Amino acid sequence: MRFDNRVTQMLDVEIPIVQAPMGWIARSPLAAAVSNAGALGIIETSSGELDAIRVEITRMRELTDKPFGVNIAQAFVRDPGIVDFVVEQGVRFVTTSAGDPTRYTRQLKDAGLVVFHVVPTLRAAQKAVDAGVDGLVVEGGEGGGFKNPRPVSTLVLLPLVRSKVSVPIIAAGGICDGASMAAAFALGAEGVQMGTRMVSAAESPVGEGWKKAIVEAPETGTVFLRQEKGPALRALRTERTERLERGEGQPMAELAAGVSEVYFEGNVGAGVALSGQVAGRIESVEPVADVIAQTVREFGEAASALGRYAP
Amino acid sequence: MRFDNRVTQMLDVEIPIVQAPMGWIARSPLAAAVSNAGALGIIETSSGELDAIRVEITRMRELTDKPFGVNIAQAFVRDPGIVDFVVEQGVRFVTTSAGDPTRYTRQLKDAGLVVFHVVPTLRAAQKAVDAGVDGLVVEGGEGGGFKNPRPVSTLVLLPLVRSKVSVPIIAAGGICDGASMAAAFALGAEGVQMGTRMVSAAESPVGEGWKKAIVEAPETGTVFLRQEKGPALRALRTERTERLERGEGQPMAELAAGVSEVYFEGNVGAGVALSGQVAGRIESVEPVADVIAQTVREFGEAASALGRYAP
Repeated sequence: MRFDNRVTQMLDVEIPIVQAPMGWIARSPLAAAVSNAGALGIIETSSGELDAIRVEITRMRELTDKPFGVNIAQAFVRDPGIVDFVVEQGVRFVTTSAGDPTRYTRQLKDAGLVVFHVVPTLRAAQKAVDAGVDGLVVEGGEGGGFKNPRPVSTLVLLPLVRSKVSVPIIAAGGICDGASMAAAFALGAEGVQMGTRMVSAAESPVGEGWKKAIVEAPETGTVFLRQEKGPALRALRTERTERLERGEGQPMAELAAGVSEVYFEGNVGAGVALSGQVAGRIESVEPVADVIAQTVREFGEAASALGRYAP
Repeated sequence: MRFDNRVTQMLDVEIPIVQAPMGWIARSPLAAAVSNAGALGIIETSSGELDAIRVEITRMRELTDKPFGVNIAQAFVRDPGIVDFVVEQGVRFVTTSAGDPTRYTRQLKDAGLVVFHVVPTLRAAQKAVDAGVDGLVVEGGEGGGFKNPRPVSTLVLLPLVRSKVSVPIIAAGGICDGASMAAAFALGAEGVQMGTRMVSAAESPVGEGWKKAIVEAPETGTVFLRQEKGPALRALRTERTERLERGEGQPMAELAAGVSEVYFEGNVGAGVALSGQVAGRIESVEPVADVIAQTVREFGEAASALGRYAP
């Protein structure tokens, strides 16, 4: 199975799968495993812990000689020096998200980086293309984490954006295996991003309780949390998040307060465990290399099966 | 482009596209156009107007010599004689929805009909298979109309159900063209159902204002309306439905009260105009035959493109 398209070329990877930049989770142990498997690991900045993240980026150089990327989560990065640091570290690929695509694109492009902007709507996609990005991460509302308050599913959003822009697209939201990757390619993507599948991977640093909760979740096992201001969130369904879904309490505040217990101790009831609907499709904790290899194998099978319908 | 799979065989059609059974809309002018185009038209019963529907089923015999189907919306059909009537009219294909799959499946199967049950979750799918249905309509939460209060996107739900049952699947929710049809096939479907695309077709009986509202809607142009009891609804975003989305008012009551103005006069602000997210992808009113022909052509192109990735 050999991929050769604009995403593999721009990202300089064999396999056009990108690991999503989950706050606190997308650090060197996970990201290096993804890059070493031939896909692209990404280091997060949405935790806002920039000193720790500088160390993580440095560590990546020790853990892999393959390319990796950094996500600049604009709403959470108050230090504009992050761009210089990323450039100095020799990072070649950046995703920007949670903010205005005009803010960093020129500076990053001038430094020679490849920039993909994360978008949840067609309007955001067009704005990013106008800002000069190289490509888009098109993110459907079934995905986990921070979301547009008016979620649009990947099956609708991706082909819509594809029909209106010419830059390459990485699909996010609802992707966890080869069948969903093949569907994304049928809709016009040239790469996919996986979040929840990576949160639940063996190399993910989250507590075992969180991985177990993903494995046990049904497909209806997430909630979509709106806030009066700011983004919505998709998270695992618990008593706490069902209360937040009813509008009682502040999702962002309870997410922040529970980070330590949820993320590192794996006690998903103690806060807000961000997760996509694919939690309902994940049945075991697997090493990243196995996830990637199986996805590629299944993708090939799905491509062959659909190819038999070719006229 | 030639399809030949379990859905084309069971439905006795050339093209495995099914028109969704929208209340008041899925009547003989629209359904006959779909059947005459080589796909499968369906007559609705969710309007509850069974006398009118008996006339519609009789009319289908005059308008087409191709197969067509009937949907039995169990929550809205109080007269169990509907099954005998459907059988007497020589209908060979039925979808059942909005209720317990054990209720009519045996009776319909004994009469020699092919029965597909509409399901929004894996649990519902397994229950329907246990009841002996021939196949499933697997309906993602991005679709319009009556919905499970815990919506799951087609990209997640369809491959999950595919991995757990062996009966053929018709995908619904998010399907409006060849790219989305190809994605559904990559996820394991052998047929697709289109609702909003057919509501906005030239032969659809709805008022022009409703078709125009679909054509002009962005992809974020629907709302998901929860109710204290009963199903949720997905409908076009209007001032009224945004109010209902905030929990003010009764969606079902406002839907019922506005049927005449919304459905026949096309005044979408006067009630609840059910619609899927694909409203954001529909850019013109087209005759059904053109929609079907273009979908088949695009499907073939997408299948060829994905087939080039086959190992």
